[in-house]
Amino acid sequence: MSKSKIKNIGVFTSGGDAPGMNAAIRAVVRTALYYNLQVTGIMRGYDGMIHGEFLPMNRKSVSNIIQRGGTILKTARSDEFRTPEGRKKAYDNLVAHGIDALVAIGGDGTFTGANIFIEEFGIPVLGLPGTIDNDLAGTDFTIGYDTAINTVVDAVDKIRDTAESHDRLFIVEVMGRDSGLIALRSGIGVGAEAILIPETKTDINALFKRLEKGRKDKSSKILIVAEGDDAGGAFEVAAAVKDRFPQYDTRVSILGHIQRGGRPTCMDRVLASRLAVAAVEKLMEGRKGEMVGLVNGDIYYTPFRNAIKHINEVNPSLLKIVEILSL
Amino acid sequence: MSKSKIKNIGVFTSGGDAPGMNAAIRAVVRTALYYNLQVTGIMRGYDGMIHGEFLPMNRKSVSNIIQRGGTILKTARSDEFRTPEGRKKAYDNLVAHGIDALVAIGGDGTFTGANIFIEEFGIPVLGLPGTIDNDLAGTDFTIGYDTAINTVVDAVDKIRDTAESHDRLFIVEVMGRDSGLIALRSGIGVGAEAILIPETKTDINALFKRLEKGRKDKSSKILIVAEGDDAGGAFEVAAAVKDRFPQYDTRVSILGHIQRGGRPTCMDRVLASRLAVAAVEKLMEGRKGEMVGLVNGDIYYTPFRNAIKHINEVNPSLLKIVEILSL
Amino acid sequence: MSKSKIKNIGVFTSGGDAPGMNAAIRAVVRTALYYNLQVTGIMRGYDGMIHGEFLPMNRKSVSNIIQRGGTILKTARSDEFRTPEGRKKAYDNLVAHGIDALVAIGGDGTFTGANIFIEEFGIPVLGLPGTIDNDLAGTDFTIGYDTAINTVVDAVDKIRDTAESHDRLFIVEVMGRDSGLIALRSGIGVGAEAILIPETKTDINALFKRLEKGRKDKSSKILIVAEGDDAGGAFEVAAAVKDRFPQYDTRVSILGHIQRGGRPTCMDRVLASRLAVAAVEKLMEGRKGEMVGLVNGDIYYTPFRNAIKHINEVNPSLLKIVEILSL
Amino acid sequence: MSKSKIKNIGVFTSGGDAPGMNAAIRAVVRTALYYNLQVTGIMRGYDGMIHGEFLPMNRKSVSNIIQRGGTILKTARSDEFRTPEGRKKAYDNLVAHGIDALVAIGGDGTFTGANIFIEEFGIPVLGLPGTIDNDLAGTDFTIGYDTAINTVVDAVDKIRDTAESHDRLFIVEVMGRDSGLIALRSGIGVGAEAILIPETKTDINALFKRLEKGRKDKSSKILIVAEGDDAGGAFEVAAAVKDRFPQYDTRVSILGHIQRGGRPTCMDRVLASRLAVAAVEKLMEGRKGEMVGLVNGDIYYTPFRNAIKHINEVNPSLLKIVEILSL
Repeated sequence: MSKSKIKNIGVFTSGGDAPGMNAAIRAVVRTALYYNLQVTGIMRGYDGMIHGEFLPMNRKSVSNIIQRGGTILKTARSDEFRTPEGRKKAYDNLVAHGIDALVAIGGDGTFTGANIFIEEFGIPVLGLPGTIDNDLAGTDFTIGYDTAINTVVDAVDKIRDTAESHDRLFIVEVMGRDSGLIALRSGIGVGAEAILIPETKTDINALFKRLEKGRKDKSSKILIVAEGDDAGGAFEVAAAVKDRFPQYDTRVSILGHIQRGGRPTCMDRVLASRLAVAAVEKLMEGRKGEMVGLVNGDIYYTPFRNAIKHINEVNPSLLKIVEILSL
Repeated sequence: MSKSKIKNIGVFTSGGDAPGMNAAIRAVVRTALYYNLQVTGIMRGYDGMIHGEFLPMNRKSVSNIIQRGGTILKTARSDEFRTPEGRKKAYDNLVAHGIDALVAIGGDGTFTGANIFIEEFGIPVLGLPGTIDNDLAGTDFTIGYDTAINTVVDAVDKIRDTAESHDRLFIVEVMGRDSGLIALRSGIGVGAEAILIPETKTDINALFKRLEKGRKDKSSKILIVAEGDDAGGAFEVAAAVKDRFPQYDTRVSILGHIQRGGRPTCMDRVLASRLAVAAVEKLMEGRKGEMVGLVNGDIYYTPFRNAIKHINEVNPSLLKIVEILSL
Repeated sequence: MSKSKIKNIGVFTSGGDAPGMNAAIRAVVRTALYYNLQVTGIMRGYDGMIHGEFLPMNRKSVSNIIQRGGTILKTARSDEFRTPEGRKKAYDNLVAHGIDALVAIGGDGTFTGANIFIEEFGIPVLGLPGTIDNDLAGTDFTIGYDTAINTVVDAVDKIRDTAESHDRLFIVEVMGRDSGLIALRSGIGVGAEAILIPETKTDINALFKRLEKGRKDKSSKILIVAEGDDAGGAFEVAAAVKDRFPQYDTRVSILGHIQRGGRPTCMDRVLASRLAVAAVEKLMEGRKGEMVGLVNGDIYYTPFRNAIKHINEVNPSLLKIVEILSL
Repeated sequence: MSKSKIKNIGVFTSGGDAPGMNAAIRAVVRTALYYNLQVTGIMRGYDGMIHGEFLPMNRKSVSNIIQRGGTILKTARSDEFRTPEGRKKAYDNLVAHGIDALVAIGGDGTFTGANIFIEEFGIPVLGLPGTIDNDLAGTDFTIGYDTAINTVVDAVDKIRDTAESHDRLFIVEVMGRDSGLIALRSGIGVGAEAILIPETKTDINALFKRLEKGRKDKSSKILIVAEGDDAGGAFEVAAAVKDRFPQYDTRVSILGHIQRGGRPTCMDRVLASRLAVAAVEKLMEGRKGEMVGLVNGDIYYTPFRNAIKHINEVNPSLLKIVEILSL
C-alpha cells in the first residue's frame, strides 16, 4: 500500500436502508484502523453532516453488528443538502472534524449528492452500492439485494402453504418502483406463475391465457407483481383477474417494508465486506468519485454519474425461464 | 383402552388453514392405526364430504408432513353443507365408505357444522381447535396460534430494523377481525408502543399522548393494530396519527396472509399431536360433540356449542404490561 | 401499589445464558422506571457484583434488545462468591451503589447463591427462571426453553431432509445433562422414532425392536438423545445401534451450543416480560427469597430452596404420545 | 430450438444431497414437458438405475417441491455401478424404459460415473453441479453452496450470542474435507477471528499471536475450521489453543449434517432452475459429456473430466479480508 495522505475517513449511510449496511460500516471502520487511519461515523447521512452529528469510531463501535439489519449510523433524507448553503455547512463540519475522505453507502440519491460535493469541494468520496433494488450499474449485485429476495421467498413460501390449502390464486406485490429485479429473481425462486415488472410491457390478455391454461392441473398459483409495473400494483392486477375469472378464489398480499430489514445473508455480508475493504484501500491510493462494485467476481469501479443510470434491461434468459417453468 | 365399536375414523380440515393442521392429521392417522382402526382422509372439509373426495390413509400418507404448514387434506367453504340436502349427501357418503366417526379440525364454523351433523345423524364427532386466532373457549391455545404470533414477531423484527434506521413510526396491522389475541401477545413480543384490539375501546387521544411522551427519548415506534379494532385498521389509525403529528415519518404495513402459513413451531406440533391422540382415544371411548383442548396442561373437553362462543375478554395483566413496558 | 421503601433495584444474569434474558432485563428496567425507581445493571452476575461492575440503566439502555439472544449484562461463574469474603465484598458494593433489592435471572446455581446472600445480609432478592433446560420447579416453562426446543426442531427439520434423501438413521444429541425436557418436546415436534432421556431407564433392546419394526415402512429415522441419558450420549447409542444393525446407514449429530442462542420466540419474550414486571412489583411489596414463575397462566411464587429441587418426573402422557406416533 | 431426436429424458440425483436439488429436478421435468419430451425420474441415482426404480414424471410430480431441501428422487452410493456388469444392467434398464438422454445432478463421483457410462454406451448425459462444497471447476457456485453457507452463518450467529454472553472463544467446525470454500465465505460472514482451511498451511503460532492480540479489546471470538484442515478438526485445534491459553474459556461446536439440509435460498433455486433449463435444451441440441455451470453470469459448459478436478486455490483477496477485518 503506497503511503496515503488521508488521515481520517468519514463513513455514512444514506437513502433507504438495506441489510448489509452494518457489515459495510464495520468493514470500513476495521480497514481504516488496520491501515492506522482514523475513522468517523456520520449519523443520518448528509443531514447529520450538516448538523454535526459525528462519532469517532473504534473496533468496539462495530463489534457484534455484522449480523444486524438496518444501519447503526441511521439514514435520513436531507433537503438542506440540495442547497449550496447546506453543502457548505456540511463541508465545514468535515474540515472541523479533520475528515479528509468519505465512504458513502447508499443508492443513486447518495451518489448524486456525492458527485456535487466532490465538484464543489474536491473532497475524495468513494461509494458502496447499498440498496435492496439492485438497480445500479457497475455491480452485479447491490448490498441488500440477496437478503431482500430471500425475504420475499420466505414470505411467499408461507403464502403458498395457504394458497395450496385453499386452491387460491395469490397476487403478491414486491418492492421495485422502477426496477423488476426483486420480482424477477424472487419470482423464479418461488416458482411463480407469472412475473409482472416495469421493464416489460405487461400483456394482460396473455396473462389471462396463461392462468386459464395452468388452471387445469395446478390448484394454487402465485403471481409476483413489482410495485411499479405498468399494469398497476397488485390490487389493480387482482381487480382485472377477478373481473375475468370471477370463479377464482383470489387474494392480494403486499409484502411491504419487511423487505428492507432482517439479518443479512452470507453473500450480502461478504459483498459488503469486500467492497468496503476495497473502498478504503482505494481512497488511500487516491481514487475518488466512483462506486465500488463487484462484476464477475472482481472489484470494479464506476464513476458515480454512470452508476446511477437506471438499468432498464433485464436478462431475457431469466424471463424465458419463468415462461418455461410456470406452465 | 376399552373395546371400541368404531372401525373407521374420517379426518378433515375445515375453515381457514393453520400451521400444525398437518401435525394433527398425522397424529390422528397414526393413533388410529396404533389402535388397529382404519382411517380415511376427507379432502376439502364438508365440501369434499359431499362430493365424495375420500382417501384411505396409512403411515406413509402422513410421513414427512409434521413440519409443513397448510393442510394436505385442503380446506374449503361449503355453502351446500348449510342445506339439509347437502348434509344428507355427506352422511350417505360417510356410510358408503364405512366411516363411523369423525375428527374435525378447524374453528367455530367447523364445529357449528359438526354439531348440526351430530344432531341430524348421530355420528360421533370430536373437534380439534385449528385456527391461528386463538379465539375458541375450552383451550388455552389453538393449533396455529403460536406459529402465527412468531411469524408476526419475525416480520416486525425486520420492520424494526428499518424503523430504527429512519426514526420512523410503523403502524402494523395483524390478523384478528374479532379477536385481539394475535395482536396482544405479538405486540408484547415486539415491544410495541401500543396495541389496538377489538376487545377494548380505543382511546385515540390517549394514544396521541403516549406517542408524544414516548417521542422524547425513543426514535422508532411500533403500533400493533388488530384488523378488527374499533378505531379501524392500520390505514385509518395512520391517517389519524398523521393528522395529529404531521412531523412524524409514519409508515403502514399490513402483514396479511403470511400469518397463516409457515412451518409450525414446536409447541404447535406438540399441541396438535397431544390433542389428536386424545381425540382418537376418546372417540373409541364413546365421547362426541366436544372440542378437545388443553387447559392448564391437561386435556379438556368442551361441548361444541360452548367452544364457539367468542371470547371477548383479554387478560388485563397483559394489557397492563404493554402500558408499563412501552413507555 | 403500596408505597415502597425500595429505591434502586439491581438486576443481573447468572449461569448459562438463555434466549429471553434480554427481554427480562428490559422489562425489569422499564418496570422500575415506570414506578420511579432507579435501576442498576450488574455485569457478569455475582462476579461483577464482587468486582464492582455496575451500570446505571435507563430506557435507552434496554431499547432494541428484546429480540436479541444472549444477555447484554453478560454472565460468568464466580468461585469467589462461594466464599464469605467474596459475598461480603459483593454486599459492600451493593451498599456503596445504593442498591437495596435485586432481581436475579438464572437457574439453580443463581438461586442457591441468592438464598445464602439473603440469609447473610437480608437484602431482598427475587428470581426469574432463565435457563433453556426447563428443570426448575414452580414454573410451567423457564425463559429460554421455548426458543431452545424450536432451535432443535429447526435443526432436525434440516437433518430430516438429508435423512430422507439417503434413507438414513440419525441419532441427534440435544442438551440436557439431568433433564430430558428439551429432548421430550422437541422429539415430539420432529416426529422422532424414539426419545432417550435421563428420567427413564433406557431399554436398548426395546429400542432395537422398535427400529426393526419401523424399518419396514419408513425410510428415515430420527432418534433424539438427551446428553445425560443413562445409555450414554449419541455416540454411545450409535455404536450400539451399528453393532446390532450394521446394515443401517447411521449418522450422529450433536447439536451443541446453537441451542443456547438465537432470537427468542414470542412466548419466551412474553414470559420474560410478564415475570419481570411481577418481580419488580413484588419486590416493592416486600416479597423476597422466591422465584417468580408462571403456573397455569398465573404468576406463581416459589421459595428458592423449592425451585431448585430437580424435577425428575416427566409427563407420562407425552412419553405415551412418542410411542403411539413413532410407529 | 432445432428439432431434437431425444424423446425421453431420465433425471437423477447422486452423491451427497444438497439444497436446491429439488428445484433442479422440477426445472428438468418442466422444461422437458415444455418441449414435449417425456421425462422419467430415476430413484437413488445409479443404484436405482441398476435396480429399475423408474418413475414417469409430470407437472404434478414436481409441484410444491421448489422450496424443499433434500431430493425427492433420493440418492445413494452404488458399488455395483463401478462394475461393468452393473453399468450394463443400468443401461439395459434405460433402454427398456425408452430413456435416451440423462441429466445427472451431483458432484465429482456422479460425473465420473457419467463419463464412463457415455464412453461405454454412448448415451448423452449432461450434469448439474449439485453439492454444498462448491469444489467443482466450471461454475462459480454449485447448487446448495449458498444455502449451506447461510446455514453456517445462522448457526454461528446463535453461537455468538452465547459466546458474547460468556466472553468465550468458540471453535466451530464446518464441512469441507478437501475444500475450504464453505469455511471461507461463512467465516467472513460471521466475522470470524480466523479461518482454517485445507488449501493453506495453518500456522498455529500465527494463530496464537492473533488470538492474543485480539483478546485485549474483544471479548468473544469465533474460529472457523474446515473439517479437512491440516491442523486437524475443531477438537485438535481446541486442544492446541487450550494448551497455549489455559485461561481462555474455549468451546467446540461441530455443525455437522444440518449444513446439508434446509429450504434452499433464492439464489440456489434460481441457479438450479437456470442450469436445468439449459441442460434440457442443450441435450436436445446434441451436447453431452459436460457439466452445465454458471460463470460470470452466463451458462458455461465444462467436460466432466475437467469439472471434477479439485480446485485447490482460494481467492487470495478473500483471505486478506479475513486478516484485515478480524483484528
